[in-house]
Amino acid sequence: MRHFIDASEHDRSTLEAILTHAIAHRGQRSNALAGRSVALIFFDSSLRTRASFAVGIAQLGGASVTLEVGRGAWNLEYLDGAVMDGDKPEHIADAARVLSRYFDILAVRCFPALKQAAEDHADPVIEAFRRRATVPVINLESALYHPCQAMADMMTIRERFGRTDGLRVALAWTPHVKALPTAVPNSFALAAAQLGCRLTIVAPPEFPLPDSVMARLPGVEVVHDQAALADQDVVYAKSWTSLESYGAPPPAHYRSWMLTPEKLGRARFLHCLPLRRNVEVADAVLESAQNDCYDEAENRLHVQKTILLHCLNLI
Amino acid sequence: MRHFIDASEHDRSTLEAILTHAIAHRGQRSNALAGRSVALIFFDSSLRTRASFAVGIAQLGGASVTLEVGRGAWNLEYLDGAVMDGDKPEHIADAARVLSRYFDILAVRCFPALKQAAEDHADPVIEAFRRRATVPVINLESALYHPCQAMADMMTIRERFGRTDGLRVALAWTPHVKALPTAVPNSFALAAAQLGCRLTIVAPPEFPLPDSVMARLPGVEVVHDQAALADQDVVYAKSWTSLESYGAPPPAHYRSWMLTPEKLGRARFLHCLPLRRNVEVADAVLESAQNDCYDEAENRLHVQKTILLHCLNLI
Amino acid sequence: MRHFIDASEHDRSTLEAILTHAIAHRGQRSNALAGRSVALIFFDSSLRTRASFAVGIAQLGGASVTLEVGRGAWNLEYLDGAVMDGDKPEHIADAARVLSRYFDILAVRCFPALKQAAEDHADPVIEAFRRRATVPVINLESALYHPCQAMADMMTIRERFGRTDGLRVALAWTPHVKALPTAVPNSFALAAAQLGCRLTIVAPPEFPLPDSVMARLPGVEVVHDQAALADQDVVYAKSWTSLESYGAPPPAHYRSWMLTPEKLGRARFLHCLPLRRNVEVADAVLESAQNDCYDEAENRLHVQKTILLHCLNLI
Repeated sequence: MRHFIDASEHDRSTLEAILTHAIAHRGQRSNALAGRSVALIFFDSSLRTRASFAVGIAQLGGASVTLEVGRGAWNLEYLDGAVMDGDKPEHIADAARVLSRYFDILAVRCFPALKQAAEDHADPVIEAFRRRATVPVINLESALYHPCQAMADMMTIRERFGRTDGLRVALAWTPHVKALPTAVPNSFALAAAQLGCRLTIVAPPEFPLPDSVMARLPGVEVVHDQAALADQDVVYAKSWTSLESYGAPPPAHYRSWMLTPEKLGRARFLHCLPLRRNVEVADAVLESAQNDCYDEAENRLHVQKTILLHCLNLI
Repeated sequence: MRHFIDASEHDRSTLEAILTHAIAHRGQRSNALAGRSVALIFFDSSLRTRASFAVGIAQLGGASVTLEVGRGAWNLEYLDGAVMDGDKPEHIADAARVLSRYFDILAVRCFPALKQAAEDHADPVIEAFRRRATVPVINLESALYHPCQAMADMMTIRERFGRTDGLRVALAWTPHVKALPTAVPNSFALAAAQLGCRLTIVAPPEFPLPDSVMARLPGVEVVHDQAALADQDVVYAKSWTSLESYGAPPPAHYRSWMLTPEKLGRARFLHCLPLRRNVEVADAVLESAQNDCYDEAENRLHVQKTILLHCLNLI
Repeated sequence: MRHFIDASEHDRSTLEAILTHAIAHRGQRSNALAGRSVALIFFDSSLRTRASFAVGIAQLGGASVTLEVGRGAWNLEYLDGAVMDGDKPEHIADAARVLSRYFDILAVRCFPALKQAAEDHADPVIEAFRRRATVPVINLESALYHPCQAMADMMTIRERFGRTDGLRVALAWTPHVKALPTAVPNSFALAAAQLGCRLTIVAPPEFPLPDSVMARLPGVEVVHDQAALADQDVVYAKSWTSLESYGAPPPAHYRSWMLTPEKLGRARFLHCLPLRRNVEVADAVLESAQNDCYDEAENRLHVQKTILLHCLNLI
């Protein structure tokens, strides 16, 4: 089964082939998915993911159905053996098997609860789908990974620079009013390292990425000073939760970590969006000619079409 | 007008023809609905119904539009003559006529309020659509009936046994943490009886089906002891509300009515889903080889495609 | 860029051409939008707009994606320069640019907050989309305008009377339990005047339309007595907010302004819907042969298909 749950489960040549295909076929319409249907299952909100998948599937001649768990659809239990007398009327063990009868692919967004790091680091919802689904599962951002975003990120870098190998890339923590998941930085860091970038993580000391991710990033430098953003090729800005104060908003004194044009230097700017202007990143960065984040968002559409075809063995 | 609101309004030969067509055409793609649109109107949550109708309509080349009453769309009044100064800004008398101008079929889900049995037993919302719509109405589960589910149920039984006539079938009440509607058991019981099954209803005394339904089930045995589940061909598990304590959760002492492998005996297991594991039904039943409920869920897709064609006089 | 934000921004010949095309092509299916996608972005609820656009786009062979801001999708900031540390995690400046990469048209519904007239009269959300989008924007009802409704209104009048010039048309204020926006009456009044109707606005003194709209309605009579409804060709019923008590429900003593058959006289009846029966308009008006509001609602579908083609330079 060709799931796409964590891009780093695939070898570099597979990821490179997906990028190459996405770049070669950008904007193409086809009937590759004619007669097929994809479930877009959202436990959480989405703008880009929902829009870009729905459009991409339509451009391939397929049908998508958006299901909102806990709103339009039932809330779902994921613990095996649960006595289900709480607020969740259906189990993923049943829902995933049923939906596999209707759809050719199950694409799932399931943010972490941000209450218990250990629970989130087990990525329980997407893993429950992996165990029970009988069709490919695409991760639309789980507690730990956002592989479609990471592929769009790397596609954007490759198109901008013609390569990924050897580029100086900084993953730059930004302030925020809320604690955010680590899925985006995890997947970006893993993909950048896997595709040969020289990655530096720039974040305050209380904001490490999960151990299970760092263990797969040997040789990646972690520094606690934004001066390290100078002289990078790419600065990837993103906020994420503290590990010590897991799930708590970052302390207000970190508002000084907002990314500004001065800190950005000569680097290209990337961000997965949504973005809180003038908290995470100054307006002037967004409105500058160094901002590639709209290309990056557009590339979600292109690379996801290739990922869909990959999961169905159609390329 | 070919509505599909209560399967028992149709004669046995019509129901048999729908099953025969659904079995013969399972999985087929066509353009039978090209240029046509179906409204999927939800007053309440759904997973299987929404997914299976959307996929089925796409497989027939049609377009579906999901409207969520009271969330994305306006809440709807159904009482004739109402002075509408409350929380419902639109009347079904208007909405049904307008939607009939846009769509070829109106498919409606409208659960009962579970407050007044007399009101629910009049099935007021789906009947308001029947009165006002100028295109066929398909019932996606109303206060009283769930005909698409019942057709999928009977299709599953017919595929499993090669027939429905003479099979020993038990409708088995299960415990739950909430009061649930009677639509599924009503429609299942009526369809099973109409298609020749030897039906037994197994439920505690406070949990009868509505009089108006029982009046159409002459000769059906009602027993209050789960020992009657032994030696059945099919056990159809489902919780529903008490009539005496209408809308109240079942008393906790009924948790002993959970369906277990021992009670199931040699029977095939059916359930409409969603299902609260280890409250209604033990995990071991779900994970056993006697569980046909995923086939049953899949058959929603197949039989509903036939029902759509039937309502439009396309078969 | 061919936006469709305020119909009165277009000259009369353009509006007439749209009506002529819509009447000539009503009900036609085509592949004019094959391979194209339209975003239906809702900050607020909708029944007719959502349904009629989704169906119309499907009839033209295109794909539509519904995005619900603040529910399924992120809530959006519209103020330039905002320090985004509140409840809105994304800025329209970013969302509109990103969505322009995915979609061929952005169609947006954004009701007014009805708290500050000055803010609403600047129509800030739709104008933020106009500034930032790089594809055409269609207004699905903003704080100030509902141009698709106005075009359906004028199409209905033209089909009923064979012309619009010289018809006696009254815009008739109705009572309501809530304060409602002025978008519908603004756009109807502007379109009726532009297309040559002899327009009279009939409303209590505290319920003027915005100055910026009235300034574009020279010669339109405003009267405060429903006797003026007698001897009209068309009565367009609608409630809207007081300007003095902006956003407050109309005083109860205005319930006497409900439209009745006696007040309607010989005129045809129009209303954009949704409508509170027996508060705004008596049941007897709705159930009379003078009621054209279902044709009017149907014409949303027809005229919007033409507007889509117009915005894409396809007609």
